[in-house]
Amino acid sequence: MNPKSDNRNICVVVHSRANYGRIKSVLQAIHDHPDLNLLLLVGGSAVLSRFGNVSEQIEKDGFKITARVPFIVEGETPTTMAKSTGLAIIELATLFENLKPDIVLTVADRFETIATAIAASYMNIPVAHTQGGEVTGSIDESVRHAITRLSHIHFPATKRSAEYLEKMGESEESVFFVGCPSIDIVAQCDRSMPTDFFKKYNGVGVEPDPAKPYIVVLQHPVTTEFGSGLDQINATLKATADIDVHKIWLWPNIDAGSDDVARGIRIFRETHTAKQFSFYKNFAVEDYTKLISNCACLVGNSSSAIREGAFLSIPAVNIGSRQNYRECSDNVVTVPHDAGQIKQAIGERMAHPPFSSSDMFGTGDAGVKIADVLAKADLNVKKVLAYAKEDVHGGLYRSATLLSDGG
Amino acid sequence: MNPKSDNRNICVVVHSRANYGRIKSVLQAIHDHPDLNLLLLVGGSAVLSRFGNVSEQIEKDGFKITARVPFIVEGETPTTMAKSTGLAIIELATLFENLKPDIVLTVADRFETIATAIAASYMNIPVAHTQGGEVTGSIDESVRHAITRLSHIHFPATKRSAEYLEKMGESEESVFFVGCPSIDIVAQCDRSMPTDFFKKYNGVGVEPDPAKPYIVVLQHPVTTEFGSGLDQINATLKATADIDVHKIWLWPNIDAGSDDVARGIRIFRETHTAKQFSFYKNFAVEDYTKLISNCACLVGNSSSAIREGAFLSIPAVNIGSRQNYRECSDNVVTVPHDAGQIKQAIGERMAHPPFSSSDMFGTGDAGVKIADVLAKADLNVKKVLAYAKEDVHGGLYRSATLLSDGG
Amino acid sequence: MNPKSDNRNICVVVHSRANYGRIKSVLQAIHDHPDLNLLLLVGGSAVLSRFGNVSEQIEKDGFKITARVPFIVEGETPTTMAKSTGLAIIELATLFENLKPDIVLTVADRFETIATAIAASYMNIPVAHTQGGEVTGSIDESVRHAITRLSHIHFPATKRSAEYLEKMGESEESVFFVGCPSIDIVAQCDRSMPTDFFKKYNGVGVEPDPAKPYIVVLQHPVTTEFGSGLDQINATLKATADIDVHKIWLWPNIDAGSDDVARGIRIFRETHTAKQFSFYKNFAVEDYTKLISNCACLVGNSSSAIREGAFLSIPAVNIGSRQNYRECSDNVVTVPHDAGQIKQAIGERMAHPPFSSSDMFGTGDAGVKIADVLAKADLNVKKVLAYAKEDVHGGLYRSATLLSDGG
Amino acid sequence: MNPKSDNRNICVVVHSRANYGRIKSVLQAIHDHPDLNLLLLVGGSAVLSRFGNVSEQIEKDGFKITARVPFIVEGETPTTMAKSTGLAIIELATLFENLKPDIVLTVADRFETIATAIAASYMNIPVAHTQGGEVTGSIDESVRHAITRLSHIHFPATKRSAEYLEKMGESEESVFFVGCPSIDIVAQCDRSMPTDFFKKYNGVGVEPDPAKPYIVVLQHPVTTEFGSGLDQINATLKATADIDVHKIWLWPNIDAGSDDVARGIRIFRETHTAKQFSFYKNFAVEDYTKLISNCACLVGNSSSAIREGAFLSIPAVNIGSRQNYRECSDNVVTVPHDAGQIKQAIGERMAHPPFSSSDMFGTGDAGVKIADVLAKADLNVKKVLAYAKEDVHGGLYRSATLLSDGG
Repeated sequence: MNPKSDNRNICVVVHSRANYGRIKSVLQAIHDHPDLNLLLLVGGSAVLSRFGNVSEQIEKDGFKITARVPFIVEGETPTTMAKSTGLAIIELATLFENLKPDIVLTVADRFETIATAIAASYMNIPVAHTQGGEVTGSIDESVRHAITRLSHIHFPATKRSAEYLEKMGESEESVFFVGCPSIDIVAQCDRSMPTDFFKKYNGVGVEPDPAKPYIVVLQHPVTTEFGSGLDQINATLKATADIDVHKIWLWPNIDAGSDDVARGIRIFRETHTAKQFSFYKNFAVEDYTKLISNCACLVGNSSSAIREGAFLSIPAVNIGSRQNYRECSDNVVTVPHDAGQIKQAIGERMAHPPFSSSDMFGTGDAGVKIADVLAKADLNVKKVLAYAKEDVHGGLYRSATLLSDGG
Repeated sequence: MNPKSDNRNICVVVHSRANYGRIKSVLQAIHDHPDLNLLLLVGGSAVLSRFGNVSEQIEKDGFKITARVPFIVEGETPTTMAKSTGLAIIELATLFENLKPDIVLTVADRFETIATAIAASYMNIPVAHTQGGEVTGSIDESVRHAITRLSHIHFPATKRSAEYLEKMGESEESVFFVGCPSIDIVAQCDRSMPTDFFKKYNGVGVEPDPAKPYIVVLQHPVTTEFGSGLDQINATLKATADIDVHKIWLWPNIDAGSDDVARGIRIFRETHTAKQFSFYKNFAVEDYTKLISNCACLVGNSSSAIREGAFLSIPAVNIGSRQNYRECSDNVVTVPHDAGQIKQAIGERMAHPPFSSSDMFGTGDAGVKIADVLAKADLNVKKVLAYAKEDVHGGLYRSATLLSDGG
Repeated sequence: MNPKSDNRNICVVVHSRANYGRIKSVLQAIHDHPDLNLLLLVGGSAVLSRFGNVSEQIEKDGFKITARVPFIVEGETPTTMAKSTGLAIIELATLFENLKPDIVLTVADRFETIATAIAASYMNIPVAHTQGGEVTGSIDESVRHAITRLSHIHFPATKRSAEYLEKMGESEESVFFVGCPSIDIVAQCDRSMPTDFFKKYNGVGVEPDPAKPYIVVLQHPVTTEFGSGLDQINATLKATADIDVHKIWLWPNIDAGSDDVARGIRIFRETHTAKQFSFYKNFAVEDYTKLISNCACLVGNSSSAIREGAFLSIPAVNIGSRQNYRECSDNVVTVPHDAGQIKQAIGERMAHPPFSSSDMFGTGDAGVKIADVLAKADLNVKKVLAYAKEDVHGGLYRSATLLSDGG
Repeated sequence: MNPKSDNRNICVVVHSRANYGRIKSVLQAIHDHPDLNLLLLVGGSAVLSRFGNVSEQIEKDGFKITARVPFIVEGETPTTMAKSTGLAIIELATLFENLKPDIVLTVADRFETIATAIAASYMNIPVAHTQGGEVTGSIDESVRHAITRLSHIHFPATKRSAEYLEKMGESEESVFFVGCPSIDIVAQCDRSMPTDFFKKYNGVGVEPDPAKPYIVVLQHPVTTEFGSGLDQINATLKATADIDVHKIWLWPNIDAGSDDVARGIRIFRETHTAKQFSFYKNFAVEDYTKLISNCACLVGNSSSAIREGAFLSIPAVNIGSRQNYRECSDNVVTVPHDAGQIKQAIGERMAHPPFSSSDMFGTGDAGVKIADVLAKADLNVKKVLAYAKEDVHGGLYRSATLLSDGG
């Protein structure tokens, strides 16, 4: 007798370093849940060695990978982002067809995320979605809200996001405010940095001393500003070069324009002595928490400055429009792509008295809550805009509704 | 000198019979507009002979096809709908890359529509969308609202749809209530039926006499009820067989489950004498208008019963959940997939005094209005949820917004 | 302890009705072999209900399907054949990556076959190939020899094919003349037809009486004559209509032009009384053997007239160029697409004294032989043209060969 | 009147740096031919900035690009090579469908080449192929001969290749020995190096002095030895580091394993002072000729050491199995992946008296000859193995041939 044979099969698609950190505690909670089985697909940049081969890390963490699926069309342009989305849908559809998951869980707002949502929703598989209702810049903004429309179970990370989801017309019963799973990692993590912290990572440049102050820079391309990436990265490079602490740069994601970012970094390295710089592709999820919770300032446009940063009260300088309109705590200040303003803001943040911790993105139990909902949620793939339901049942307009038929 | 060289290039993707009828007047208006060039891509079922080769009809109507693109993965299952979406994205991305349109216009709520919207929006090409904000059943409901989120210019067909779009958080400046382009065709069309109307169409079964009463049946599969198609079509076949007028059946679209519908029709034909039945794949857009405006009753689950039906005051029996919550005029009555109820409803509709015409879906000038907006609209691919903009500017929450940077 | 854990994993891709019959005895022999595990992928038209859903038959026969993979791009044109090939490669590569087969076995000469060979050979998986070295018309001819070049283990079905493979420059050690696995089925099959033979098949038209004489027609499109399909099928329809026995027509394969063939059949059915005609999509492999071994004449361009026909001594009329240059026994006569000549040839074949059986395509033990070779063959993915090896080692020309390095 | 409207449209797919050099003189000759139009598709690594954006160079050379098509699936593994092949077929099929070329010309032996050949041959477009009949190691060997089987017009580069093509069973009338187009460039090129030769190239490392002796290294991954790439490149790095002249390394192609090669180079750069090393992504075709014709030794496994090297009498050390069995002149010596042997061979080559020039790969007029054949060749897509034709017509075996029907 296999005690798990009646369990719900929950399929999660992990496709990048950042993505893994945002869902790891949920994977663990699904894996540990008596009524759930985990089907884990790993694709996108998570199977590429150029991005630090996240799939190896996932296996080291004790998860069994059900299938690997490479679907990135090379080029890092707007065109290849679109094509990668298409290829991901094709591949995921075949895997879903053969694995027959009961629910597919998809994370946040990336092209891999919408590919997952499209494949599953067309295949009548209920879609669960984390981080819906948040607001930012970049194409991610549009894509996130589009995924919400294709999803059947919502796990917003903040109260405001939950409210926005209902305001958009998602039904109240489908929205579960649980906090962000990334905070689970952060809340449980021992934040102390061992002296040999950087030894195991194959960085480029001078190895940092974890005992001395350092700043962390993570700046992704802004897809909707494609073509400006080199100038944008140069401003940040120039600003940070003048600050007399060690700078730890992390490799950007695989969005359109990441080639510009990488090129800017390479040119800088070849034309500057770069004594106080080091460059890394990837950190284990917990190590990333250690790294940012001990930094003097977190610089760039990563959402971790805002999300984990709120909980960890990390001094952060957010640059440009990528996080536009995202709700944040007072640890974050935002500046344009101007070297002078970036440098000044970093200086001010580093001189600022400690910020207090905020639980706006949750308190550390999102993973367990999500697994519980997945085990019990009503699985119905029929959706309808909540306004319409209300208006029709309220007699506000005449409709072609068959009220007896699930209407 | 080429007078059109500074014109905006508007790319429209036409992918099916129904789709063409919904956008034809816009194609004409773009083609005729002094400041616009039309780039016309034809794909999906519109290039398949099994669906009546709509691309030939398009050329007969005087439009030049820029490129043909076959992207349907065969099977008509939920899996192949997903895969067709992926393949369409891949193909359209290459075409957009080479054609470099200024705006891509996408129609309604189908997998081809969302494929178009995803390719264009990831490629930073502004997306214009018709029929946003409407409410129905089936996967189309989710997909329609997802496309809205990826679109930059909205052309809702009804006042209510326009209101819903803003309620969802689309910015007021991006919503243009213009009516439905399908009404343009209907309003201008000479509705009289020549006696040889059916001669040119290669139908199966007895040729109908246009001078005698007939009913038209068009029943598409409901993707979210995949597996029930055969029962559903059998109920309609049984109901209509008992009604003593000629029945003109139209072939369903290519959604998951259409194979069931086709099979039901085939089995019926082989096991019944079917004297008063005929079956057609395709009518020219104007002929479809003639056909339905002269019928005794329009039966099934096509939106044309509701849309063109409202304007043309066609007695209509809408079956099942596919049009759930769609606003409609009093010409429509909705019944479940029950042969008895369907038969009774058809009888009642046929006996009903004439309905009055409704302009809820527009008055016949949508095409021209859309072309005008396309020629002048501000082309900005950055979007943000309107609630967030309002709340942040109203000081309701602290955000990572760079207000100077288009925030 | 799993006794099969050190076994070689043999992956076979089955994609159509005909294809399954050609490899079924090998599947059984692999399944039964103590040192082999069978990984069975089913794709192409074998997962489409329009083609009789062969995958269900495979499962009824007791085989476990490892994965289903739909990859047919709809249209049945030269363009969509090419696109289906591309999609099949993409899908199969992901499956091979996750299944990690030791050998991939691919059958004959179709687009699915070359897709399998390309995916496996680029992935350094040894490719075994049946039916190499045969000669025919159509694009299959070119594709078959191309697959030979990508394959590492050859299982030709005839002596002449084996000789041709070596003549082309394949190494002697890689060529194993085993006969055709299709003959295994035929040799073991009870050829008697029960009186209710046709009952279980959902044919169209009058059900044939197995006790009375009948002819079987199977005519595939000729891809390299795309556009002539309708005329070609009409000639055969006309010829057979005049012959006063029952005609059993089988549905063509999914090659470019099959739509023409299907259309020809449909038009004929709608315009003729077709009293002595019936149409079938699919027979179980053994039933197909019964069907053709008892027919008065096998008409069309299927290779089964030549292959199984030789062993079963079936009177056969081969039409057109599809089998050009294929070696055959005296049961076959070939005529052009001319109704008069076809009709006359059928008459002569039916009047001819019985033909004698030929073992040119083997004696019925191909499956077991193939499994044995697969269990023991040296697995080396490096290949080189045999002429070159001989010439270089014979000192005929100076080469950049590193003789010590596997040269 | 458009004088070129009756011209044959010749479509060429260029996909990489090396590939462009091998076909450039043909592009020019087609462009200049009064009876031909050039349709130029650029894809693969030729549209990727990581590989030096060859498409820009093509436009600078005065060619108009008909369409750009990105189809590389990222990863540089055996799996992604297979998937890139599939994606290329899908994309090229759509472009061929819309461009309707009369002939498609494909170059050499790469995955892009077989993708082109498969798309065109399934679409009944005659395929012309350069470099058929050559013999080497790697997967290219199998793929080259497979492409031959799909091709209708052969342009072998050497006499031996031409003989091998016929020996394989290609018909004599389809084989045109014209020499290699790459020799055209070399023969016409001014080989003198200006003092500022390296200025315009954005290399990494110390800029070389063109007046001083230097060696050029170009080492591609061997796909069929995937996994050994890092060791192989390390041997070459170690060997060349000890030689006291400047080393100019070129970036490898995009085959499976190129990531290993790139990683080896990066690690070396970060761990060695690398004073006498410089690294380049790309040279213009003519500059590449200058570069290698003036080098003290050409090291690695590029076919240019053998091909252009024969004509230019370049001292060359060929490493490993990639060029196994390729015919070569006495300028080439071959050694295994052993640092000691590589170093010694380079020393001996540099000390060797000048080699004499060989015309085994042609005399410099291949481009013009190829264009002439393309303008006049009989366009027939039906092929049959020449042995079979001979044997059947010689009465050697009974076949199902319809001799009147093009048999």
